Amino acid sequence: MSRRKRVNVAVVGATGAVGTEMLRVLQQRRFPVKGLRLLASSRSAGRRIPFHGSARRVEALTKRAFDGIDVALFSAGASRSLEFAPEAVRRGAIVVDNSSAFRMASDVPLVVPEVNPHALNGHQGLIANPNCSTIIMLVPLAPIHRRAGIARIIVSTYQSVSGAGAKAVLQLYEETKRVLRQCRVASGQWRVRSKLVTRHSSLVTPLPKQIAFNVIPQVDVFLDSAYTKEEMKMVHETRKILEAPRLPVSATCVRVPVFFAHSEAVWVETRRPISVEQVRALLRRAPGVALADAPSVGSYPQPIEAAGQDAVLVGRIRRDESVRNGLVLWVSGDNLRKGAATNAVQIAELLISGRVN
Amino acid sequence: MSRRKRVNVAVVGATGAVGTEMLRVLQQRRFPVKGLRLLASSRSAGRRIPFHGSARRVEALTKRAFDGIDVALFSAGASRSLEFAPEAVRRGAIVVDNSSAFRMASDVPLVVPEVNPHALNGHQGLIANPNCSTIIMLVPLAPIHRRAGIARIIVSTYQSVSGAGAKAVLQLYEETKRVLRQCRVASGQWRVRSKLVTRHSSLVTPLPKQIAFNVIPQVDVFLDSAYTKEEMKMVHETRKILEAPRLPVSATCVRVPVFFAHSEAVWVETRRPISVEQVRALLRRAPGVALADAPSVGSYPQPIEAAGQDAVLVGRIRRDESVRNGLVLWVSGDNLRKGAATNAVQIAELLISGRVN
Repeated sequence: MSRRKRVNVAVVGATGAVGTEMLRVLQQRRFPVKGLRLLASSRSAGRRIPFHGSARRVEALTKRAFDGIDVALFSAGASRSLEFAPEAVRRGAIVVDNSSAFRMASDVPLVVPEVNPHALNGHQGLIANPNCSTIIMLVPLAPIHRRAGIARIIVSTYQSVSGAGAKAVLQLYEETKRVLRQCRVASGQWRVRSKLVTRHSSLVTPLPKQIAFNVIPQVDVFLDSAYTKEEMKMVHETRKILEAPRLPVSATCVRVPVFFAHSEAVWVETRRPISVEQVRALLRRAPGVALADAPSVGSYPQPIEAAGQDAVLVGRIRRDESVRNGLVLWVSGDNLRKGAATNAVQIAELLISGRVN
Repeated sequence: MSRRKRVNVAVVGATGAVGTEMLRVLQQRRFPVKGLRLLASSRSAGRRIPFHGSARRVEALTKRAFDGIDVALFSAGASRSLEFAPEAVRRGAIVVDNSSAFRMASDVPLVVPEVNPHALNGHQGLIANPNCSTIIMLVPLAPIHRRAGIARIIVSTYQSVSGAGAKAVLQLYEETKRVLRQCRVASGQWRVRSKLVTRHSSLVTPLPKQIAFNVIPQVDVFLDSAYTKEEMKMVHETRKILEAPRLPVSATCVRVPVFFAHSEAVWVETRRPISVEQVRALLRRAPGVALADAPSVGSYPQPIEAAGQDAVLVGRIRRDESVRNGLVLWVSGDNLRKGAATNAVQIAELLISGRVN
């Protein structure tokens, strides 16, 4: 497909947290949309969503809905992707899938455009979008890896509720209101009770515990290894994207009471020495990165600043004195944008640019 | 002093977040209080605080206030401690100081009773209580260190606002109310705006940034090294308490929108191998630790569970596969209790028990 060609686009999961952001990103980046098909569960069919000024009707997801589609952006969960993505490819669409369904398949490229765009060459019609926490970590780590060779990564995450979908956003909102109602604050005499007395009553609770004024050291389900699936996604996807199949990576993934944008504390050990100043210079010109690293004037990444942006904010860059060639940094990135929708649309842009073989 | 002797106690900073908790802990642990003197700034003098059923009057902090005092518990900040603690010692009191003023002084014991009670021997009248994040980390790490020899620690914290004092609790409360007012949520159509539009107007803001629905990668002030003072407290105090002057430690300290209890993701490398099962067995009987490590049934430490408890909750214990002899764990502990008041009162209990030389 040539660069200027306009294409027929399907957005699968159009009413979800990521799907909504996909539509916003397609408009903001002026993606060359000819026809647009909004697909979702039959429950959402019939709803109307504005796109470039006109209301588009949501249709029920069926296999035939992919007829005539050039690019299908999937974000409706792994089981929907497993069922419908191969069918969309069969009917001629290129699929960019935001679920975990195909990420580790050897014939499916797993791509962060700033990191490994070459992995798109020779694709079979299906491209996987990595996990949000992995993307946000690798955008700043990839330049360091290229320059100095990363030998080990330790990461702990501070993940926003929107990563668990629109209902988790509502859970944080409703729980927070209820906890505040339990508190008594009047003229200097106050009492804060942060644990909800009654929890599951009428609330939607996609998260496994109370999230208001709490942190939950569980993102996704637990595996037999006592790691969560999210933590192992960060290990396996990082290795695949960096093409470093045995790279030592250890992650602790934690949900925090933040609506949008994930943050991460990252320790890396490099094979070759690289100074903090060299890292700053490298990241200052790295694509997809915005340096926010002037702590003396209060500049460092925060989720409320990263929310709504495509760039991953990077700061608190410093030596890890506890090991040879150690570095520490702190990143915040919008999990719905660069962590999902923006990355998927960027992949689609590359695919229709004609620069992919 | 013999075990049964009742003593005259002064609480310095009695109206603050830690001071209030000190009074609660003294009552709950039935500390043998003969006389009690509540000391605070002249601004708070005259206030009355209940203790064992009777209202005690707060007095202004003066040097003469320590006449006749046996044990003085300080938690009024480093500058108050620097000015008044030596004077209290001169007048015959034993001081347990919760500030950072004297922690690294070579003639001042820095004590976690479960870890290094022997450091109290030969004290000069002044004992320092460690930083809350350090205490909460070392209660579970000390048994591992004794058994397997810790060679390196990496820690990222999830610290509650109460660690920054009573006003920071109020900041989180007030900011949260304001952010919720900015959100529109009605019948499935909602919009969340998590960044406060107007911030500093009428709010007390001891924290350097908005904390509601945000995380702040800054606790205490920045040093020239680009580390914060809090992060370096965790390094230096850990080395002093474990008597391991060159132990490699690296910390990233982060404030999260939680009222009470700090959590920490901790990676340790040990000199000798130790299995996850051995660590669990060790921690199951370790003093001051409560194991919460059954993820398959949803049991893991969370700050809303740790709040109000003296035990440090430990869970998510697993192998760190990225390094030889690596372990990962997750802890939550009440920063006002074990992280401050309980630890100080435990030290005072040891001092009056007659078991200290």
